[in-house]
Parts: sequence; C-alpha cells; structure tokens
Amino acid sequence: MPLLLTDADVAARLDAATAVAAMRDALVAAHEGRLIAPPRASAVLEGGRLVMTAGHLADEWYGFRSYDTFGHADGEQLVVLHDACDGRIRAIAVGEEIGSRRTGALGGAAVDLLARPDATTIGVIGSGRQAWTQLWAAAAVRPVRAVRVFSRSAARRSAFAARARAELGIAATAVDSAAEAARGQDVVIVATTSERPVLAAADLAPGAHVNLVGFKQRGRAEFGSDVLARAALIATDSPAQAVAYEPPLLCGNPADLRSLGAVAVGAAPGRGSAEEVTVFLSVGLAGTEVFLLDRVAALLTSADVA
Amino acid sequence: MPLLLTDADVAARLDAATAVAAMRDALVAAHEGRLIAPPRASAVLEGGRLVMTAGHLADEWYGFRSYDTFGHADGEQLVVLHDACDGRIRAIAVGEEIGSRRTGALGGAAVDLLARPDATTIGVIGSGRQAWTQLWAAAAVRPVRAVRVFSRSAARRSAFAARARAELGIAATAVDSAAEAARGQDVVIVATTSERPVLAAADLAPGAHVNLVGFKQRGRAEFGSDVLARAALIATDSPAQAVAYEPPLLCGNPADLRSLGAVAVGAAPGRGSAEEVTVFLSVGLAGTEVFLLDRVAALLTSADVA
Repeated sequence: MPLLLTDADVAARLDAATAVAAMRDALVAAHEGRLIAPPRASAVLEGGRLVMTAGHLADEWYGFRSYDTFGHADGEQLVVLHDACDGRIRAIAVGEEIGSRRTGALGGAAVDLLARPDATTIGVIGSGRQAWTQLWAAAAVRPVRAVRVFSRSAARRSAFAARARAELGIAATAVDSAAEAARGQDVVIVATTSERPVLAAADLAPGAHVNLVGFKQRGRAEFGSDVLARAALIATDSPAQAVAYEPPLLCGNPADLRSLGAVAVGAAPGRGSAEEVTVFLSVGLAGTEVFLLDRVAALLTSADVA
Repeated sequence: MPLLLTDADVAARLDAATAVAAMRDALVAAHEGRLIAPPRASAVLEGGRLVMTAGHLADEWYGFRSYDTFGHADGEQLVVLHDACDGRIRAIAVGEEIGSRRTGALGGAAVDLLARPDATTIGVIGSGRQAWTQLWAAAAVRPVRAVRVFSRSAARRSAFAARARAELGIAATAVDSAAEAARGQDVVIVATTSERPVLAAADLAPGAHVNLVGFKQRGRAEFGSDVLARAALIATDSPAQAVAYEPPLLCGNPADLRSLGAVAVGAAPGRGSAEEVTVFLSVGLAGTEVFLLDRVAALLTSADVA
C-alpha cells in the first residue's frame, strides 16, 4: 500500500531547508547525468490535455508528475514515486504542494548559489503560491531581515506580507509598485502571471540577484530584455528545457545560459563580484517533483518508525 | 482526499456482471464518440518507458492509466480518475486488478455479443491472470457448465481448474494439450504469452466463439492465420488501435475488422448462424481502465453512504 500524501501532509512535513537541499542534489544529479528527465509526454483529450513529466534517478526511483490543461481552478496534480528495485509504487502525492515547493526550492538553490553571501533583503513581485514558495525557500538560505512585496491586488499583497511576518518571522511590508519592491534589494523575486514586463532593469541595485519564475518567452514575458542585458550571468535549472521553449525563451543567446547544476559542482563559474547582477530563469527541471516526493516520503517513513 | 484502492479493494467489490456491463457501456460510448481515447503517450527513461493511456468521457470524467516497461515482476500500475466538472481526483487504483478485470470484461462483452446464446462449455488456453479474468467475465454472461484448461505448467493448470471450481462453481478440469482444451467447446479463450501459435483452426468446433488475448502481430502471435481464415466474423474492441499495431496485426484485411461497439448498438451485424466461427481480437480499448474505475468508485461511495 503506497503512502498517499495530501497537500496538508506535505505542508506539515517539508521544511524549506530540506526542500532546497533536495533540489540542489537534483541539479547536481541532472548535471552528472544520473537524473534522467525526458521531454514531457501528453495525451490530447477533448477540451484539454493530460501531461506527464517523468524522471528516473538511476538505481533509486522512477516516476512522474501528471497534470492537465482543462483549466479547472481546483484541478489536482499527481506525483508518483516508483521504487527502481521492484517497480512498486512507494508514494503518491495529490495536489499542488509538491509542485510549487519544488519550484520554490529550485529558486532557493539559485539564491544560495548566485546571490551575494551577505544578502539580507528581498523584493517580491507577485503574491500567489509561486511567489510564496520562492520566499519560503530563499529565507532558508540567507538571513533575510526585510521583505517588500508588490502585486496588483492591495489585499493580496498585504496578506502576503502578513504571512511572511507570521510564518517566517521577517519584517515584511506591502508596497505600491513593482519598482518600489525591487529598488535597492539584494534579491528580487518575480513570480507573476503577467505576459508583459513588470520589472525594469533600472530598478535593480548593483549586486542584485533576480529569480524569474513566470512567463519568459518572446512576446510573452514578465520581464524585458533590459533585465537580461543588465545581467553578468544568466543561469537556469535546465538548459535543455530552456532552449526547447516554443515560442523561444526571451534570452539574447541561449548558448550563454549557464547550468545551475554546473555552478553547484564548480564546473561553471558563479557570481564574479559583489557588484554583478545575476539572473535565474526558472524553467522547472523535469523529474524534480518525484525527487522531492522521494525525500518527503523518506521523512514520513522515518517518522512512522520513530 | 481521493479514494485509494488496492487490488484487494477492487477484488472485493467488483463482480463480473458489473464489469462486463461497464465495458459494454464503454464500447458503446467509444462507438458513439463520447469516449475519447487518444494514442498512448510515453516518456523514455533509461532502462524503460513510462506509458500513459488516457480517456475522457464527456461531462463525466477524464483520467489515465500509467504503467512502465522496466519489466519488474511486481511493478505496479496506476489508474487515476478525475472529475470532469472540477478536475479533482476522485479515485486512484494501485496494482493490476482494474487493468486485468477490464480486459477480462471486454472479453466477457465479446462472448455476450458473439458467442451462441446456448454456449455452455469453455476451453481455456493459458492459466495466468488474463486467462482467469476472461473466464471470470465469460461465466457472467453464459450459464457455463464445463471448463477445460491447458497451460504448459501442469501445476498451474490444475490450480486454475481448482480455482474455477471453488470460486465460480464450474466443473473445470485441467487437460494435457491445447487441442484437448479447445476441441468441441462453445467458447475458446486464448490468453498466453506465446509468440507462436498455440491454437489450430482444426480444433475449433462449428459455431465456436474465440477470444484472442495475447500476442496477435505478424511474426509474433499466439494463433495462426488459419484461425482467422476459419472465422465468419472478426471483431475488436478498438479498430483504430488494431490498425495502428506495429508490427501489423495478423489479420487478412484490417478493413474486415468489425467494431464490437458497432455490434453492441446494432450498427454492424453480429453472428449470422449457429454454425459460424466468430473471433474477438482483444486490443484493450484505451480509457476503459478509467471507465471501470469510475464504476468501482461509485460502488464504494454508495457503500460508504449505506
């Protein structure tokens, strides 16, 4: 009988440091060729598609995430973990938490690898689930002392700031513009559903690190090419997935994209100075949901034994 | 929180008559265009593939079955049922029972639609899980009084016969050859893993109906073309899937393949006389695992309420 995990189970058990460590391990495994993550597969149904993103960590596990494109507000995803030794299903997670926390934790790994070691302030543009898990993870890798958040809804950005104060113990305030959220901050997180730029390069401080989570394609991006032009280094969690975007990624030269896994193992350089602007383009390395579920399942199993 | 069903749950709740009725409804829905069942999608991992077969019954549900090709003896499949109204996952089945019972029940629907109404004897070639569910389902649509079973392992065919006596209350005996199992029987079930013919047309009685469940491709088939040549009618659960086989189906002219769903609604003729031999080529209509899980979930939900 496999473990069946709900969003509440995941939220109760998975702390940010564990999630970020898992995603850093996943980035390294992908860089070293141990994490196999093929292109997504999908089945076309009437009115939507069912999509499967799969992964395989040699000798450990294989599995997949499924989601659909019917557009239901409460539609549920699934993450499934098979044991590589016998093919049995060890765990199944239903809902959104594994997916959004793995994206947040990939962002946290990027902050850890690319932001200045002395970074303590974060600007957040966006106040949804993705923005939250980015902050949740970033706060695990830097001693964050102040957060400024902007989103279009005054109620939602205030609620986001209140949650950051309550759950993360950070002095967080809602501000009235994206520029105000970004200006002077050590780290800037952009996690919106906007198809037009919401962040201007002019608002980035020297030495800032930027995580870009939302749309990032030509003709549909939450940032402009000015932000990329300002960067001394642009990294991504999956260069292979990034160059396969259609329409293409908004990125001067995809060959310049640095693999975050290569940075993690020292095979590619990271930040060169305290003044450089660095950018992380989050594309969602395939297989990482299963990678994270494997870690959560291990936590639960050891807790049951204890 | 979705229902999570194990093989034991499915075995305890799903009777053969319910399963056959469900698969007959699925065949009709597919014939009428209400059951959408696209080609399987798969993700290539190192050492195997993860495969998804999806289905969508308009306004009711969508979902999929996943399985892999790593070849683990105890590898587990998954069947997932989403509610079409809100996208939530209503039920998840882990294991083999939904899959093998739906294949059995498709065979049962074929026996119901194509075998002589007065059929009472069944010959079974093969003694595995698929052979069992074929017999289980066939016994729900005809008053079976005698079964003869052959498989290569004397111990396994004896165990199969004993199980048929115990669970189905049928006079079942193990015999020493496939010919002996088939000869003179009203219905013949072939459900083996053989890549070479195990059934000869000469052993089929006039008026026999044959379910062919195992390999059925050119160069790899559990039956020869003589069996097909003997048939007045060759039907399948999915003509679209049958003609897409690669290597191709061992079948004189795929255009002659009759849709079992068309027979079910009277849009295509069934058996023409008591002397004709009829053949069912079981290919596994996509979406039917989800169709069956929907029925099983409804049984469990109503039982919980009662």
